[in-house]
Amino acid sequence: MPSASLIKEFEAIIGKENVFTSEPDRQSYAYDSAVLDQVVPALVLRPTETEQLGKLVKLCYENDHPITVRGAGTNLSGGTIPDKREGIVILTNSLNKIIEINEQDLYAVVEPGVVTAKFAAEVAKRGLFYPPDPGSQAVSTLGGNVAENAGGLRGLKYGVTKDYVMGIEFFDVNGGLVKTGSRTVKCVTGYNLAGLMAASEGTLGVFSQITLKLVPPPKASKAMMAVFDDVNKASEAVAAIIAAHVVPCTLEFMDKSSINYVEDFTKAGLPREAAAILLIEVDGHPAQVEDDAATVVKALNASGATEVHVAKDAAEKFKLWEARRNALPALARARATTVLEDATVPRSQIPAMVKAINDIAKKHNIAIGTFGHAGDGNLHPTILCDRRDKHEFERVESAVDEIFDVALSLHGTLSGEHGIGLAKSKWMEKETSKATIEYSRNMKRAIDPKYILNPGKIIGA
Amino acid sequence: MPSASLIKEFEAIIGKENVFTSEPDRQSYAYDSAVLDQVVPALVLRPTETEQLGKLVKLCYENDHPITVRGAGTNLSGGTIPDKREGIVILTNSLNKIIEINEQDLYAVVEPGVVTAKFAAEVAKRGLFYPPDPGSQAVSTLGGNVAENAGGLRGLKYGVTKDYVMGIEFFDVNGGLVKTGSRTVKCVTGYNLAGLMAASEGTLGVFSQITLKLVPPPKASKAMMAVFDDVNKASEAVAAIIAAHVVPCTLEFMDKSSINYVEDFTKAGLPREAAAILLIEVDGHPAQVEDDAATVVKALNASGATEVHVAKDAAEKFKLWEARRNALPALARARATTVLEDATVPRSQIPAMVKAINDIAKKHNIAIGTFGHAGDGNLHPTILCDRRDKHEFERVESAVDEIFDVALSLHGTLSGEHGIGLAKSKWMEKETSKATIEYSRNMKRAIDPKYILNPGKIIGA
Repeated sequence: MPSASLIKEFEAIIGKENVFTSEPDRQSYAYDSAVLDQVVPALVLRPTETEQLGKLVKLCYENDHPITVRGAGTNLSGGTIPDKREGIVILTNSLNKIIEINEQDLYAVVEPGVVTAKFAAEVAKRGLFYPPDPGSQAVSTLGGNVAENAGGLRGLKYGVTKDYVMGIEFFDVNGGLVKTGSRTVKCVTGYNLAGLMAASEGTLGVFSQITLKLVPPPKASKAMMAVFDDVNKASEAVAAIIAAHVVPCTLEFMDKSSINYVEDFTKAGLPREAAAILLIEVDGHPAQVEDDAATVVKALNASGATEVHVAKDAAEKFKLWEARRNALPALARARATTVLEDATVPRSQIPAMVKAINDIAKKHNIAIGTFGHAGDGNLHPTILCDRRDKHEFERVESAVDEIFDVALSLHGTLSGEHGIGLAKSKWMEKETSKATIEYSRNMKRAIDPKYILNPGKIIGA
Repeated sequence: MPSASLIKEFEAIIGKENVFTSEPDRQSYAYDSAVLDQVVPALVLRPTETEQLGKLVKLCYENDHPITVRGAGTNLSGGTIPDKREGIVILTNSLNKIIEINEQDLYAVVEPGVVTAKFAAEVAKRGLFYPPDPGSQAVSTLGGNVAENAGGLRGLKYGVTKDYVMGIEFFDVNGGLVKTGSRTVKCVTGYNLAGLMAASEGTLGVFSQITLKLVPPPKASKAMMAVFDDVNKASEAVAAIIAAHVVPCTLEFMDKSSINYVEDFTKAGLPREAAAILLIEVDGHPAQVEDDAATVVKALNASGATEVHVAKDAAEKFKLWEARRNALPALARARATTVLEDATVPRSQIPAMVKAINDIAKKHNIAIGTFGHAGDGNLHPTILCDRRDKHEFERVESAVDEIFDVALSLHGTLSGEHGIGLAKSKWMEKETSKATIEYSRNMKRAIDPKYILNPGKIIGA
């Protein structure tokens, strides 16, 4: 626990009501959505103005307290688990002002604690569109989205969070305000630190303000579902769609076990016998949507889909996507522990990846349901287990190791959108190189000599 | 000049024929396209295999020789001017292999010396599209484009070079190979060093291999020209087009003096009396192109265009764009020295910016022609002068100072796409902050303790 005098200094900055010292309060911020050991923070601070943030960071640095900045704690790799060395959690949920939505210049300026879905809704009210849609968007924050470079269903066509970051202001460890990027579409003034902040998981600076790009919304869209009796055929369909130069806004995959878990959960009428389904949405100009939908249906049929169902109206479309939205909740309720992975491969490697995942599940006698973003090769093999069963969990850990090895052998990556955090840092060198880790550590050490900015994440301690 | 023994070591790596020691050879690499003093390098090296690159970098580092990596030397901010402290130039023009164009997974892997236009043409042959189109694309290299984060005419709709960088492999100062990014659409493994490399101007690593995103090409396009008797009306038209949710692939502006210089040069029939013209192209699905073109024409007329001319065929379209392509060559031939700036503002601030530029030109009695990318607020005020005329050039320097001040006061940026290099580093703190410069310098020092990677650029010495 920090000294009484330091606590008094924090209280002087943000008020007594925003400094949390009690065990139950601190306990609430000991974990995130990753399957990892909890660490109870020594203190929790809730600034209400961004000006206070810099002062808090400086004080933590001067007093050697590691900082973990926390939005909604939805990340899946332990990025918001506090440090064991008297770690302090700084909450951003009261830094939630949308400072500006500029309709003429197509950008918005926000504080880091703004909730993603609320922001997207505000933007939509002005007739504009903020595309990134991570699965946790209903509660996740934009600061967290940037820190994790959150993806989502629309990644293939619209890109991920970093593609919408125009500028960031952040505090360095001394409480100095670093300004990077601009409100202009083009900016090459100085290093692309805004780009560096994306996916930096709170280890290089504490965000104070974020400028995000907006786009005009698509005028029309159309959703459909295709059923396959063979995973390879589903994957061929994905390739055929891209080869026909259609880039759907979403192109989602669910394997047989995901389908059945969802069906157990929702009785939505999904085809239990199918080896896989694809859920696809195309958007854009109405004529383009018609053409693209026709091209997609053709590609699906040519690839051997046993059934193609095009949603006739908004209600049918909603129902299709509800099945996809239920994939994770349905899988999660089957067993006590859900290990949600995001090994990602170039999309042409999906059949090889799905086959390998199924072989690994059999080999280790564990249950894996796989769903995810087929369009961008970002699969979510989801392992259903019970962490309290030591023997089973050892098999799970072996399986995860093997999944990563296969993904890397297929020119893929450890993490498409969930981050490295604590969970995957030990695998980093396998994908990159010793020189990459050294380069990253040198950079980190120069920016944060005492390693107080969310230590242990990405590059280890 | 490096020692004879060091030269022998270089020769052992790349062969005698690729080590240039003679004065005339070295003289060729003493400058780039910025108006700055020349610096003749101590030595010029031309590796022919990327494996050699790491060895050269290591040797330079061990022997304290600053390195400036050079593609085509087209940059406009002194980014490729060698260091005075026995600087060595490393040429990338023999590292020009396109390693892979992957049509299924929509990416390409290239060496840094591949010429932009050649690459775009190869990609087009496979039925795909690489959108970034910097003005120097006919000779510029992809490595240079990434190092400068080159923009171009298509920035508004398609983004700039960094938006197409999926991954980079680069050498650190010890010759270690750093791997960042992936061949997958989504990747959050480790720091976004690929993003950091964009616009880093060769100061943080030496690129060995670049993975670039490709997209399907638009199926149709339509170009048009609008004539205005008032700059404000042209700018209102830009705002009206965006407000109507049309995002043209190009939306270009030329002021009266640019028009007249082009007309002197080409006799293309441009309207000499016009205060400004806009050149616009929309692309996409054929039906969308029709709709968008109609919306644009309506916006142009409603904003008071005195004439709107839609290109009827490819030949007319070519002629329209030829006028724009001739803007810089036409301006450049008017006087001995051309200072091409790229101060950039949010697009709604274009009228204020154009007015300020004209006031500054009058105040300092200098000639400025302004053209550029109206859609993204990236203007090119081009000062026509003679650097040998000391008095005039002092006035030019004062004018440039004032142009930057105005751009910053309008929430703009010092450089939209030309880079900071040597030319603008002294202004960096004005746009960012002392903490930003310190943060950047700490980072640079950690990565390159001897400051041998293109020293002096961006953040000064």
